[in-house]
Amino acid sequence: MYSSVDTIWVLLAAVLVFFMQAGFAMVETGFTRAKNAGNIVMKNLMDFALGTIVYWAIGFGLMFGTDIASIIGTPDFFVMNDYGVKDGYTSYSYLIFQTVFCATAATIVSGAMAERTKFIAYCIYSLLISAFIYPISGHWIWGGGWLATMGFHDFAGSTTVHMVGGVAALIGAKILGPRIGKYDANGKATAIPGHSLTLGALGVFILWFGWFGFNGGSTVSATGDKMLVSMSTIFVTTNIAAAAAATATMIFTWLRYGKPDVSMTLNGALAGLVAITAGCDAVSPVGAFFIGSIAGVVVVLAVEFIDQVLKIDDPVGAIGVHGVCGALGTILTGVFALDGGLLYDGGAKMLTTQVIGVASVAVWVAVTIGIVFMIIDKTIGLRVSEAEEIAGLDLEEHGLASSYADFMPTTATFVPVERAVPVVHRPAETKVSADGHKLSLVSIVTAQERFEALKSALDELGITGMTVAKVLGYGIQKGHTEMYRGAEVPTRLLPKVQVDVVVSKIPVRDVIETAKKVLYTGKYGDGKIFVYDVENAVKIRTGEEGYDALQDTEIEESK
Amino acid sequence: MYSSVDTIWVLLAAVLVFFMQAGFAMVETGFTRAKNAGNIVMKNLMDFALGTIVYWAIGFGLMFGTDIASIIGTPDFFVMNDYGVKDGYTSYSYLIFQTVFCATAATIVSGAMAERTKFIAYCIYSLLISAFIYPISGHWIWGGGWLATMGFHDFAGSTTVHMVGGVAALIGAKILGPRIGKYDANGKATAIPGHSLTLGALGVFILWFGWFGFNGGSTVSATGDKMLVSMSTIFVTTNIAAAAAATATMIFTWLRYGKPDVSMTLNGALAGLVAITAGCDAVSPVGAFFIGSIAGVVVVLAVEFIDQVLKIDDPVGAIGVHGVCGALGTILTGVFALDGGLLYDGGAKMLTTQVIGVASVAVWVAVTIGIVFMIIDKTIGLRVSEAEEIAGLDLEEHGLASSYADFMPTTATFVPVERAVPVVHRPAETKVSADGHKLSLVSIVTAQERFEALKSALDELGITGMTVAKVLGYGIQKGHTEMYRGAEVPTRLLPKVQVDVVVSKIPVRDVIETAKKVLYTGKYGDGKIFVYDVENAVKIRTGEEGYDALQDTEIEESK
Amino acid sequence: MYSSVDTIWVLLAAVLVFFMQAGFAMVETGFTRAKNAGNIVMKNLMDFALGTIVYWAIGFGLMFGTDIASIIGTPDFFVMNDYGVKDGYTSYSYLIFQTVFCATAATIVSGAMAERTKFIAYCIYSLLISAFIYPISGHWIWGGGWLATMGFHDFAGSTTVHMVGGVAALIGAKILGPRIGKYDANGKATAIPGHSLTLGALGVFILWFGWFGFNGGSTVSATGDKMLVSMSTIFVTTNIAAAAAATATMIFTWLRYGKPDVSMTLNGALAGLVAITAGCDAVSPVGAFFIGSIAGVVVVLAVEFIDQVLKIDDPVGAIGVHGVCGALGTILTGVFALDGGLLYDGGAKMLTTQVIGVASVAVWVAVTIGIVFMIIDKTIGLRVSEAEEIAGLDLEEHGLASSYADFMPTTATFVPVERAVPVVHRPAETKVSADGHKLSLVSIVTAQERFEALKSALDELGITGMTVAKVLGYGIQKGHTEMYRGAEVPTRLLPKVQVDVVVSKIPVRDVIETAKKVLYTGKYGDGKIFVYDVENAVKIRTGEEGYDALQDTEIEESK
Repeated sequence: MYSSVDTIWVLLAAVLVFFMQAGFAMVETGFTRAKNAGNIVMKNLMDFALGTIVYWAIGFGLMFGTDIASIIGTPDFFVMNDYGVKDGYTSYSYLIFQTVFCATAATIVSGAMAERTKFIAYCIYSLLISAFIYPISGHWIWGGGWLATMGFHDFAGSTTVHMVGGVAALIGAKILGPRIGKYDANGKATAIPGHSLTLGALGVFILWFGWFGFNGGSTVSATGDKMLVSMSTIFVTTNIAAAAAATATMIFTWLRYGKPDVSMTLNGALAGLVAITAGCDAVSPVGAFFIGSIAGVVVVLAVEFIDQVLKIDDPVGAIGVHGVCGALGTILTGVFALDGGLLYDGGAKMLTTQVIGVASVAVWVAVTIGIVFMIIDKTIGLRVSEAEEIAGLDLEEHGLASSYADFMPTTATFVPVERAVPVVHRPAETKVSADGHKLSLVSIVTAQERFEALKSALDELGITGMTVAKVLGYGIQKGHTEMYRGAEVPTRLLPKVQVDVVVSKIPVRDVIETAKKVLYTGKYGDGKIFVYDVENAVKIRTGEEGYDALQDTEIEESK
Repeated sequence: MYSSVDTIWVLLAAVLVFFMQAGFAMVETGFTRAKNAGNIVMKNLMDFALGTIVYWAIGFGLMFGTDIASIIGTPDFFVMNDYGVKDGYTSYSYLIFQTVFCATAATIVSGAMAERTKFIAYCIYSLLISAFIYPISGHWIWGGGWLATMGFHDFAGSTTVHMVGGVAALIGAKILGPRIGKYDANGKATAIPGHSLTLGALGVFILWFGWFGFNGGSTVSATGDKMLVSMSTIFVTTNIAAAAAATATMIFTWLRYGKPDVSMTLNGALAGLVAITAGCDAVSPVGAFFIGSIAGVVVVLAVEFIDQVLKIDDPVGAIGVHGVCGALGTILTGVFALDGGLLYDGGAKMLTTQVIGVASVAVWVAVTIGIVFMIIDKTIGLRVSEAEEIAGLDLEEHGLASSYADFMPTTATFVPVERAVPVVHRPAETKVSADGHKLSLVSIVTAQERFEALKSALDELGITGMTVAKVLGYGIQKGHTEMYRGAEVPTRLLPKVQVDVVVSKIPVRDVIETAKKVLYTGKYGDGKIFVYDVENAVKIRTGEEGYDALQDTEIEESK
Repeated sequence: MYSSVDTIWVLLAAVLVFFMQAGFAMVETGFTRAKNAGNIVMKNLMDFALGTIVYWAIGFGLMFGTDIASIIGTPDFFVMNDYGVKDGYTSYSYLIFQTVFCATAATIVSGAMAERTKFIAYCIYSLLISAFIYPISGHWIWGGGWLATMGFHDFAGSTTVHMVGGVAALIGAKILGPRIGKYDANGKATAIPGHSLTLGALGVFILWFGWFGFNGGSTVSATGDKMLVSMSTIFVTTNIAAAAAATATMIFTWLRYGKPDVSMTLNGALAGLVAITAGCDAVSPVGAFFIGSIAGVVVVLAVEFIDQVLKIDDPVGAIGVHGVCGALGTILTGVFALDGGLLYDGGAKMLTTQVIGVASVAVWVAVTIGIVFMIIDKTIGLRVSEAEEIAGLDLEEHGLASSYADFMPTTATFVPVERAVPVVHRPAETKVSADGHKLSLVSIVTAQERFEALKSALDELGITGMTVAKVLGYGIQKGHTEMYRGAEVPTRLLPKVQVDVVVSKIPVRDVIETAKKVLYTGKYGDGKIFVYDVENAVKIRTGEEGYDALQDTEIEESK
């Protein structure tokens, strides 16, 4: 005889946790660039789809099958045994509930490895973490394994789910290396802002919404006063921790950067949610307030440390949020737990157990996922080519010209320039303008991804004034034929950039040769340069005209 | 005496199914163009609003009122009778649950008919399908009609809801005809990519989320072990079918197109959900896996067949997903049902019944909705004018200059050119550039919707090198005065396209006359052409300058 | 002994109501401009976070603590007492349920005050409304205060929540004043369209979804036939009122503006939801239909009245939707309530009580929030500077260059021009074009926010033909160094606008001097003007060339 309320509770919680997939997809796409927007949502969709299949086929049994030596469950392929609880939930309600938890761990990684991971590599990783890595450490904690026996307390999965994802993200992002342009020549981190903070924020709201199912549903029962009080307390602690964390991050970034940082505060809310997950049932609302506040500060430092000291490029902050704050929250449970916590005269026993649990799971995941990523890297390859990364994974991995077909992204990508074509300096044309100097407009049309290189080169030539427009170029370019829903996409119009510079002192010929040097590849699509006569130029700030108007944008080279 | 858990279950399921409206709105707007984004969300909103009213006023009674001759329910205007169940759900919880199902059927059609259907026509269609067409076939299946008596099994509505919507979509899209530019002169399908795949993906996640209510809630009870096990099984089969379908589509498109197709895989997940809906309670998880996998492949073939063979233009794939996979899933229930299915020694009886049910509902909907659309077409008109379609339904149907006021869409629309204005060829101006040839920049500013025609004409003239920029034009144009929230929108700045071509061999005069020919309408807004002298041109790939630099973009006419 | 179903009902309703925060965030960001998109979602996030903390710390006790003189509850800091109900919900489930209601009232205000309110000021306001203002009037109605005693009926908070937010929005928007450019020199309202109607529509769907929890959950019980029937009725009345309102708004705007207005219809659905909230448990579905229909018409008139007569700038319509329709719905409950309503022979007693309740709460909120905003205004300041508003709050308040990093917004902002730099008229350059007249292209590159001023000035000069392109400018500008996630954002490329005008009759010098006059500030970034020779111009509509082609865009000044 099963319980209606328990089964309803577990099923509806599963629905809420499922929806967190949408939250992750929105956060990850919002915090990354438009040219990879389709790829990242596809990864989020497919890790759930593939995870569902293999967790059902293999993973669930390894996690919840009859315990073998406190290490692993007995395989139960396709979940043939009964995991229901008398007067409680049914077997399949538990399966769906655990499936959506597994998928959460898997999907965390896609954010940290965004914008440069091969799609096929990501699919393989997803299969392996869902089938083996997550279920085995999960068994230790929730399946009756050795950490469960030790009394390790991770109620809804700060460690079991989030830190597992966060550690995998750390190893993956480290092996992958940073995105092109993320670190400059001196190794200094550059910001690569996301393409839609509103979708990112929507994702955070969706995650917060789903987290009530994640934590609240982890009672897996709604029967009896103790359980009902616990469920309600969990809702309150979860919400207060998230609110405190967002507040703490907002204040901390305000003090640290001079302004309250939007994207970091969004991370802050998630950090609080991750941190409270382990102890949401065990701490008071006041404890939750402190756990959230600490997480809200720590996540900022963690994101900076990973980005600037470790120089690991994590576009969405997944390592800081899920890895660091997952560990942090689990350990802080040993401090704030009303029953057994350090602050409540529980001594250090619980805290020690929490640290052991965190450390052993971290090592397990780091080693196994490290092997997985290494093997992928050496065989099919983990990372896309440089050209694919610059063009965007939507185009290269999915044949998708743009996820936003009607809008022209203005992304400038960053390309190292090491080309050597001889430059011939010739005198400028001799025609002379009204004010006695020759003024010329040099208009360069080329591929958008070469823009940064061109800009740097013109910079070195002493030209700092330019007007840049995103245009569509059309010419003989042997364009790709891309398929969209089985039909050909007409792609003869390709996004180009038009860079206009007006020069007088600097010879037109120098500009032409400089541009040729950096833009030349010998392939179709290198672009064209046009030169026009300019009759006059006016600098509005000073009122200077002609030659003089150009003398702060044409800086003489060091002399 | 009603049941708390049953009523809660039905009400919360209704909430989840309601939210599917948001999912449909996001999928449909994401898969279509920005210029129709407001129109499509408005249609999604209004079919729900209008459907709510008329289903309450008329439809519900026809569907669930006392059966008349196994064909139709007795009208019960405004639901005055009691439909509650002793020890089960209340009457009004059933009304709201059925209302959101009805709205799902109605809203499917908006996607297939997107970007060209008159708003008023869509409103009328919505009223009629919700009041009569859906309720009557619904009565046959769920209201105690003849299909119910035959043992037709459509648990949550693969046929009752999705196929009804899909067939209506098919008939509607066929009568409407394709969008301008969808098929080229040879009848070959062209892709018209959607304007936001991220919103499309969000929509799919929302639909998957809501589907747990759609299928799980269709037990309309949460009492007793049998029901609790059934609810839980439904969650598992629903999720596995969707996951298997997404995986199958990903693999199938990978093999077929060379790359895993994002938008098709999103459709694939939905195809799996649609297909499992009929038998989610009757098949095993393994059966669900196969139903999903089959649907994931079939939807790709169906979308292609509809698009390329039938040449019916369905911008979002609604016919393939809801129509084809709705029928498919209903029929496969006769194959995979544990009790009665072909594969489980049930013989062909159930399968036959399923086919009869699918066929008869398809005929019913095709005939009635065909009449509805025909009458609309002959009276108020079903389709907007060509000019309205090109300008976008947001502007023409709602006076909305853009749903994305701060962003300038870069859509190029496709216009047939059949104009005949005499062309006078005159020699090029005689001024000569530095390299002995005259180089000229011809800069053409005109309406964005004329761009494709201009490009084709210049192409024929032998010009293939051009730079295209989206600009705002301002001039005396007797601009529309649009209203937004009761206030005037300043619209004197209109989106224009600036096409720059540099020519030497081809006479400037030819370019001017060609442009005049294709752009001339005699109305304000035809645009302007400016000619500038060019001092030099450089082709970066080859290093050629002047006249030579233009000789692959200026191709000589056939000689 | 608590009830499982009651506690589940209250907790899940709280989750749904929480999600309304996402709905508000999407509506508010979608209906405003891209340059403030990050700021508005940040405000929505932080009012919830700050509200959660202070409502727990202070507000809840003032609202639900032991009544003092029918005016206020006894403070119960951090909710130490037990508010659970025997055989009902637990104490903390009630806390979380009330917390999300409080946050709803607070967040309404952000929309009306969008695009110009200082972030710090908004944080302070949020703290005060959540800690004091909302809880005190809330106590009168739901906490056992004097309005409760009088029999004031506000079931789920048309007045308690929505009107409180709406009145605060009214006072706040009035004190703030309108956005720059909202009213022209004659005081006429100008539309400032939102940057994403699709996100706005998504927000409305999310709100409608959450509203089932808002109204349905307000039974705070799911036990017993009476309660189960009530819950179900509430779902039906809520849905019908929203549907009727959307329909009414659609029809009314169609009649009034000639076309069905998308954004207003979205507001209309919300208006219906707000209006039915007070009486959703007390009226019949037919009553709900009328309440919704009335609200759908009234909201249009209210938005226009506020915008055009009161000249209060409310970017999202929050005052009309929540303030006006909150009051309206509360009062109409006195008309349509089956038990006590004017139309059901209840006489005017209930109606009178409803009016008294609405009026007294409106006065309470107006006075207290007025004091709060006045004090903020006089101390730290309520409104950002003009320059900050023009540049956008994302940049100025959060150091966020754009919430849409890959897309270049095309916003034209409106700047008053009152500068006086002496203009020297000199004759045009003497070089002459092919057709005997000198044609010149004057190309002006300047900051986007100056565009409107430039356009107006050129207009006055008689130039109405121009081509405008959004470009990126690069030069010596002492660009800000913005931080994003702790790393520097490279911002040397700044959005600029390039305005091209071709003139013949009007001297080039006049164009230059006019541009200098309106663009001059003496600071870096004023921009540059370039002059080019034009060889020919063709007006496509008429076929005119050269000088003649310009004679409708160069209008002679009054003579």
